[in-house]
Amino acid sequence: MTKTNPGNYFEDFRLGQTLRHATPRTITAGDVALYTAFTGSRYAVTSSAPFAESLGLEGCPVDPLLVFHMVFGKSVPDISLNAVANLGYADGRFMQPVYTGDTVVSASEVIGLKENSNRKTGVVYVRTSGHNQRGEPVLSYVRWVMVRKRDEAAEVAAESVPQLPTAVPAASLSLPTALSLHGYDYTLAGSQHAFEDYEVGERIDHIDGMAIEEAEHAMATRLYQNTAKVHFNQFERARDPSGRRLVYGGVVISTARALAFNGLENAGLMLAINGGRHVNPYFAGGTIFAWSEVLEKVDLGSAGALRLRLVATKDRPCHDFPDKDADGKYPAEVILDFDCWAALPKRG
Amino acid sequence: MTKTNPGNYFEDFRLGQTLRHATPRTITAGDVALYTAFTGSRYAVTSSAPFAESLGLEGCPVDPLLVFHMVFGKSVPDISLNAVANLGYADGRFMQPVYTGDTVVSASEVIGLKENSNRKTGVVYVRTSGHNQRGEPVLSYVRWVMVRKRDEAAEVAAESVPQLPTAVPAASLSLPTALSLHGYDYTLAGSQHAFEDYEVGERIDHIDGMAIEEAEHAMATRLYQNTAKVHFNQFERARDPSGRRLVYGGVVISTARALAFNGLENAGLMLAINGGRHVNPYFAGGTIFAWSEVLEKVDLGSAGALRLRLVATKDRPCHDFPDKDADGKYPAEVILDFDCWAALPKRG
Amino acid sequence: MTKTNPGNYFEDFRLGQTLRHATPRTITAGDVALYTAFTGSRYAVTSSAPFAESLGLEGCPVDPLLVFHMVFGKSVPDISLNAVANLGYADGRFMQPVYTGDTVVSASEVIGLKENSNRKTGVVYVRTSGHNQRGEPVLSYVRWVMVRKRDEAAEVAAESVPQLPTAVPAASLSLPTALSLHGYDYTLAGSQHAFEDYEVGERIDHIDGMAIEEAEHAMATRLYQNTAKVHFNQFERARDPSGRRLVYGGVVISTARALAFNGLENAGLMLAINGGRHVNPYFAGGTIFAWSEVLEKVDLGSAGALRLRLVATKDRPCHDFPDKDADGKYPAEVILDFDCWAALPKRG
Repeated sequence: MTKTNPGNYFEDFRLGQTLRHATPRTITAGDVALYTAFTGSRYAVTSSAPFAESLGLEGCPVDPLLVFHMVFGKSVPDISLNAVANLGYADGRFMQPVYTGDTVVSASEVIGLKENSNRKTGVVYVRTSGHNQRGEPVLSYVRWVMVRKRDEAAEVAAESVPQLPTAVPAASLSLPTALSLHGYDYTLAGSQHAFEDYEVGERIDHIDGMAIEEAEHAMATRLYQNTAKVHFNQFERARDPSGRRLVYGGVVISTARALAFNGLENAGLMLAINGGRHVNPYFAGGTIFAWSEVLEKVDLGSAGALRLRLVATKDRPCHDFPDKDADGKYPAEVILDFDCWAALPKRG
Repeated sequence: MTKTNPGNYFEDFRLGQTLRHATPRTITAGDVALYTAFTGSRYAVTSSAPFAESLGLEGCPVDPLLVFHMVFGKSVPDISLNAVANLGYADGRFMQPVYTGDTVVSASEVIGLKENSNRKTGVVYVRTSGHNQRGEPVLSYVRWVMVRKRDEAAEVAAESVPQLPTAVPAASLSLPTALSLHGYDYTLAGSQHAFEDYEVGERIDHIDGMAIEEAEHAMATRLYQNTAKVHFNQFERARDPSGRRLVYGGVVISTARALAFNGLENAGLMLAINGGRHVNPYFAGGTIFAWSEVLEKVDLGSAGALRLRLVATKDRPCHDFPDKDADGKYPAEVILDFDCWAALPKRG
Repeated sequence: MTKTNPGNYFEDFRLGQTLRHATPRTITAGDVALYTAFTGSRYAVTSSAPFAESLGLEGCPVDPLLVFHMVFGKSVPDISLNAVANLGYADGRFMQPVYTGDTVVSASEVIGLKENSNRKTGVVYVRTSGHNQRGEPVLSYVRWVMVRKRDEAAEVAAESVPQLPTAVPAASLSLPTALSLHGYDYTLAGSQHAFEDYEVGERIDHIDGMAIEEAEHAMATRLYQNTAKVHFNQFERARDPSGRRLVYGGVVISTARALAFNGLENAGLMLAINGGRHVNPYFAGGTIFAWSEVLEKVDLGSAGALRLRLVATKDRPCHDFPDKDADGKYPAEVILDFDCWAALPKRG
């Protein structure tokens, strides 16, 4: 009888099952500083308390992606310890800002199960949510992972595949209460481009490149208390054909998002994650580049929202917007295809 | 007349001498976040302020091992700058929690001296203690180090070797005042196993492996303001047969302790360090594994305490509990043999 | 019409032009902890709140060099994105302490312009200043950089080269208001040497060596939100003869300054930067050593001030004080020649 956590296998999950994840996490100014050191993020709203307060916020909100990583990390021991692959995200909504000193606690509900025809694995769909210390929801998203079965012969519970939206509908986006962008200082934010200046279909090459070292992704992933072995256990990874630790996909998302400052300086507040796929693995040492495409625009009243596709590559500048082909196949250099909503100030 | 610190040599120490160490240290949320990034530690009591407060604490206590490293680091310039080897620890007691914002100051008393027969070195025994900004003791431990003599011919003061306990007696363990584990949330802590579920003699393989990079151990050791040259001066280390910087032993202890979460999730509060030996050197890049053995159990009333042996290896999984042989000789892969007391909640 | 920042070219600058830089920055305990992890700095005044308060300060001041890096980093996108070389610093004055929770905002005024005879580049002189959230100046310094022209044929505005002081005059040095060194605890600070114990012309070899890894300088430079591509874009740097990312010169300054603790323990409060030149490039992996020379002494009343030259080398210990030759040419191992004022307690 081992006391260590073997993780759940496919046949252990039940539709409707709820898992409260361990290790609630108080997010501090230390976590935020580390996030800046890992990414180089320069959005004014998450860098300057007076700037954030000028927008009606209580102080710098914790970067929504840092909140995502904290909530996601806690779900790993229960959901994806025996995962073969993290297949995708959908319907991710940031309901309200998290501030330093807040504590997030993470839970998941099993909303879909589908055994694979080989009977060795199955796909588990979970809705994971983060709540703050007042029990208020701060984040909710769906992810689906391919999980091994412990026993190939095991019978599997009723199957069901959830209907998932392609994107979070604009009506479901939550702007922080009291957000006011009237006095927005475009110069301090780094760009004069307002919501009105972006057009659907517009593409932006973010130009800059950022290399990530083993120490950097490992420290980030430990900070998020994500325990997936592939990121840390070099001894075991030496037997993998790559011979390398795999970088947590969230590190790629955050790096690309920080690079996207160059061209999207006023889009610091992410509102939703519509989807995301890690289409090729990324290993430390490669230089990450990124480009964005404006997919949709919606006026939310006190702010505008852009639906942005964020594509990241490794060792491949993005001046020609490397993309999937007509068959949906990605070049080997493309590592991320991410889709989110972000708030921007309107000119007037 | 140099102004730089040459450190003390064996003949400079006197029995009963007290050394107040430089650089008192205010421990902040930044230090705590870095400690999480270095180790991946997931104990709920040090991760979540509301969880800690539900146990009667003022907030998250600073991980006792982080306090240890901070106190230890300050003693290096006075005690072990001319050390050949750090031989051991004993009788380490954590007297009360340290919270972020507290300042620890470190001092040592020389409690033993023994010249080696070659007259080139001698063993110095010190009791090092840390006090907070109110002058209250937070930590006290004994360590002994082999220190070079400046002058082989120098006469040496009266010799004396202190009697040291094998383990801190249960009666000397300090639970935090006001600690109450009645409402302990085992699910949020990550395991249903209470004090009663562990048996003396039980061994736990902590399964997970963690590689540490040069940047990681160097940043940690700088954070602790530990100045031992072997950790930092690569130019000088290039002349060592290893050609490598040596990793501060405390980094190995903290990594192993974080790995031990998997199987000892409710043992987040370390109460005492009974002993510890770095039985083989560890260099960056190796993957650390760990296993534990329950050596003793004692009921402290409001909590239980387990005496735990924590063994760490490099590039060697611990399913078969690699250990010293009948002659007390360790396999080359074993790098740490550590002995501590930790508090656990009782079931009822 | 790109939305990304192309940076300013030489012909874009105008004498008297003022540039408000993006991303005001709230400096937190997290930033301070990271600075300690990057440098190993041990000055008591920046490590211990009670120590700092005993000197009349409000708490630990943020290390002046960390303030410098934060202010400098913000100026990069506007001033030096198209720079060929960072040529020097002068007249840097720290006007008042910055405390954690303060927000610094950065701006630059163009105070000199001089086209090079090849017409491909020109030298831009800027006075960059940092102000806190109350609009009070905390730092002001001049730097000059060689910047590419976008168009070789472009006509250039009126040329002017500013007169710059060799050193900040003693009368311009600002001690923190309310600073009182009467109760200064030399033991806790790590040395008994007061202002009176240092002589003009005295040289100090700081002995210790510190290697810096790619992950360390990249994290530091991201933390400062310095965006110069040479520090991050490994893909592009692979085409450079070095094949390596260049380390931000500020990382070398901070490392050397932290090494200088050993021999200048009581000089923790930097008051001014008189000048600084990165005389050879430094790449990660090299071990940094440093030595200091006392250039001037001045009694400021409540404290003494030493003008200190700080020379750093790579992979070259400094026992023989490696220096420029009679022609002003530096050995390849010397990487930094820095000149600053620092406050010290007086004996009585």
